[in-house]
Amino acid sequence: MTATDTLERTKWDVMSANRILAREGVLDGYGHVSVRHPGNPEHFLLSRSRSPELVSVEDIMEFTLDGNVVGNDDRPPYLERFIHAAIYQARPDVGSVVHSHQEDVIPYSISSVPLRPVWHQAAAIGYHVPVWDIHERFGDTNMLVSNLAQGNDLADALGRDKVALMRGHGFVAAGNEVQDAVSTAVYLPKNARILTTATLLGGSVKFSSPGEVALAGPIHPEHPAFQRGWEYWLSRAGLKRP
Amino acid sequence: MTATDTLERTKWDVMSANRILAREGVLDGYGHVSVRHPGNPEHFLLSRSRSPELVSVEDIMEFTLDGNVVGNDDRPPYLERFIHAAIYQARPDVGSVVHSHQEDVIPYSISSVPLRPVWHQAAAIGYHVPVWDIHERFGDTNMLVSNLAQGNDLADALGRDKVALMRGHGFVAAGNEVQDAVSTAVYLPKNARILTTATLLGGSVKFSSPGEVALAGPIHPEHPAFQRGWEYWLSRAGLKRP
Amino acid sequence: MTATDTLERTKWDVMSANRILAREGVLDGYGHVSVRHPGNPEHFLLSRSRSPELVSVEDIMEFTLDGNVVGNDDRPPYLERFIHAAIYQARPDVGSVVHSHQEDVIPYSISSVPLRPVWHQAAAIGYHVPVWDIHERFGDTNMLVSNLAQGNDLADALGRDKVALMRGHGFVAAGNEVQDAVSTAVYLPKNARILTTATLLGGSVKFSSPGEVALAGPIHPEHPAFQRGWEYWLSRAGLKRP
Amino acid sequence: MTATDTLERTKWDVMSANRILAREGVLDGYGHVSVRHPGNPEHFLLSRSRSPELVSVEDIMEFTLDGNVVGNDDRPPYLERFIHAAIYQARPDVGSVVHSHQEDVIPYSISSVPLRPVWHQAAAIGYHVPVWDIHERFGDTNMLVSNLAQGNDLADALGRDKVALMRGHGFVAAGNEVQDAVSTAVYLPKNARILTTATLLGGSVKFSSPGEVALAGPIHPEHPAFQRGWEYWLSRAGLKRP
Repeated sequence: MTATDTLERTKWDVMSANRILAREGVLDGYGHVSVRHPGNPEHFLLSRSRSPELVSVEDIMEFTLDGNVVGNDDRPPYLERFIHAAIYQARPDVGSVVHSHQEDVIPYSISSVPLRPVWHQAAAIGYHVPVWDIHERFGDTNMLVSNLAQGNDLADALGRDKVALMRGHGFVAAGNEVQDAVSTAVYLPKNARILTTATLLGGSVKFSSPGEVALAGPIHPEHPAFQRGWEYWLSRAGLKRP
Repeated sequence: MTATDTLERTKWDVMSANRILAREGVLDGYGHVSVRHPGNPEHFLLSRSRSPELVSVEDIMEFTLDGNVVGNDDRPPYLERFIHAAIYQARPDVGSVVHSHQEDVIPYSISSVPLRPVWHQAAAIGYHVPVWDIHERFGDTNMLVSNLAQGNDLADALGRDKVALMRGHGFVAAGNEVQDAVSTAVYLPKNARILTTATLLGGSVKFSSPGEVALAGPIHPEHPAFQRGWEYWLSRAGLKRP
Repeated sequence: MTATDTLERTKWDVMSANRILAREGVLDGYGHVSVRHPGNPEHFLLSRSRSPELVSVEDIMEFTLDGNVVGNDDRPPYLERFIHAAIYQARPDVGSVVHSHQEDVIPYSISSVPLRPVWHQAAAIGYHVPVWDIHERFGDTNMLVSNLAQGNDLADALGRDKVALMRGHGFVAAGNEVQDAVSTAVYLPKNARILTTATLLGGSVKFSSPGEVALAGPIHPEHPAFQRGWEYWLSRAGLKRP
Repeated sequence: MTATDTLERTKWDVMSANRILAREGVLDGYGHVSVRHPGNPEHFLLSRSRSPELVSVEDIMEFTLDGNVVGNDDRPPYLERFIHAAIYQARPDVGSVVHSHQEDVIPYSISSVPLRPVWHQAAAIGYHVPVWDIHERFGDTNMLVSNLAQGNDLADALGRDKVALMRGHGFVAAGNEVQDAVSTAVYLPKNARILTTATLLGGSVKFSSPGEVALAGPIHPEHPAFQRGWEYWLSRAGLKRP
């Protein structure tokens, strides 16, 4: 496959990830998903400022790891591209990042009750899910991650974890590749809903063990079991790999 | 743009606001949205008595600020047009009003637990959300705002705020322009659901700070970030600006 | 209008009530809605054993007030037609009956916490909502109302009220006419959800007052405000009055 | 009917059961449903590794009761086919098995609060619903039932019951025939939601009695009342029996 083919395929991945996350209720008019540039790890690919379910391959722009637009592209970018930039900079292992406002997750960003994995498919979120509060270091803001310093602070809070909640805002999920970030972002809200209901029932709750999370967590995009879920999501989003 | 063009565009705004709010689950068979007349601040535009998702440009009627029909238009108006009339009268800064029965918000109109902003996009609802109880001044009624005195009492309760809850009935959202009122009305239920879940989890809850609400609250309809959401809502409602 | 025309129109009403209640999530594969025969108050009209969203005008059968099929019609009827028969027998004021398993209402049929009106449009359910438990008089059964004695016991529990909950089963709503029964059945689940959330918030809850329920409760099918909602429901069910 | 016709009809049953369970929200990209081979009780029929809403008649594979593929079929099977194999082996009365991750049920697999029948149609789940925890015998795993020993342990936990919850994973429902397993799997989540809400209301809760469960539980696929629901599910899944 030529470098051009690989880039085109990656842009198709970014587009389809947007459409899948919109269809599965993880993104609405806001939120975004990026993929690290396949030929240049110092760049990443992200749509222009457009709602996920409307994103096309032509909307994908290229950015540096400090959030600047690459090339002669004057279309308005997402204000919060610094979320992606900072995480790619801090985490060479990360190949894809999702930022979402999914509403079943946000309660855990404002509650003292921690979000923990309780469902086997959500082991991908990791055993520990940190909460980042922009107010701690930046005081009163409009709560958006609108510069690299704020992005770096979020990346610090994320540390080596897969997911970080953003207080009163949403979450960020970081994956090795696009299938990892997307599926983690889809399973996180379901885990949140299961945990919420179990908590509300008022009895004791069995969390997944660290060992279970370690064993069930890793995503294997090439396995038939994963392919089955991905084919399903593409189909629901009205897409078919070209 | 001629005055006629401006009026036609505003009627299109009223129609599309109806369709968006229906599509996003804020209005069902009931509830309504109005816009102040672009050429005459003493009048406002509101559909005839029709369900929001069915409203067309031809359904838009014109009213005075005491709720009377302007011109020779004998189609049945909404009974509760006085909600809109009274708020436009009391608040020269308000250009658009939404009235809704959205079910995730109503619990906060009958509970002693206050609705407060906890999610950055819902900062538009304001730091303080008053509750108006028609019973306090009017005793037992059919709970509808069916005359100007009741509308004025509701407007008094709203005061300088963006949103007022109506006990056992619904809410009213007032915005500078139609995009402001519509997006506030869409984000309010999501904020309510997030707050409800966080409350039920049983731990402590971090509310948005007054400073955050002040900084994150204002809507900028001309910004690309806002345009992105508006394009998404129009698209979901099956509309495209002519 | 001839008697034949009136009967045909009433059958269309039964069909459209089925489709509306299916579309609005009040009925699923089960549950049913009947209308008293317009020319003979000792008979009522009800579909053959068919799921509500599939019911056509041709499916409507005629029954006596003891639940027997009228005429030479050997299609299988609903087993629980006795619910309808007994209520029409006990309540000459009732012109239409809905039986539903809607899931947001059933918790109040098994909980000691009573269902009460808290939302203005749900005042149609009445100030008092009794719970009928088939076990009290009939002991262990398959919980279905499968004979007239059980239907009569349910009708006794309903008394002069609009709605009765059936323990671990569902509810029955009785209206003056089909629009009354249908809208009551649609608003009841929304009232239940609002009350549930308000209860869970943990503060005090303001219920609608008896006077408010008396004033807001009655349905006026001929009013433009009611027609607006009915047009909306027909439209959503893909129907248009012929 | 020839043996070939019967086999073809059974494959159509497996396909349609998959589509129904996907449409009714019991299965998503994962989960599966099997039927015992109509001509050989030592074999069962199950789709290749494919998401339920995409399963076609051609996808159905044949397996032995130790989970091995029958014949020269090298398509990837579901990893968790051992769930089905072990239950068919342990329970000659079982003709169909569903495995699901439905999210309203999973809280009861991690909570000390037991899932019990409270709604008449869900009596099919049985009076007692055991919880199986893979960790008890196998320690830390990836939580999947990936061999026969784990399947047998699950089948032991199921015992003579209809449904077993799988801790932090999902549930399995076993029925006499496909209609039994499918309807049980559809009613179980609704029963869970009703019980959850009733529990949260904070009062006392009336469970279905053992006698009621015994009388209301059995499924009669040939009865008009059951046929009505099945026709409805097929219709919603876009299917019509050939």
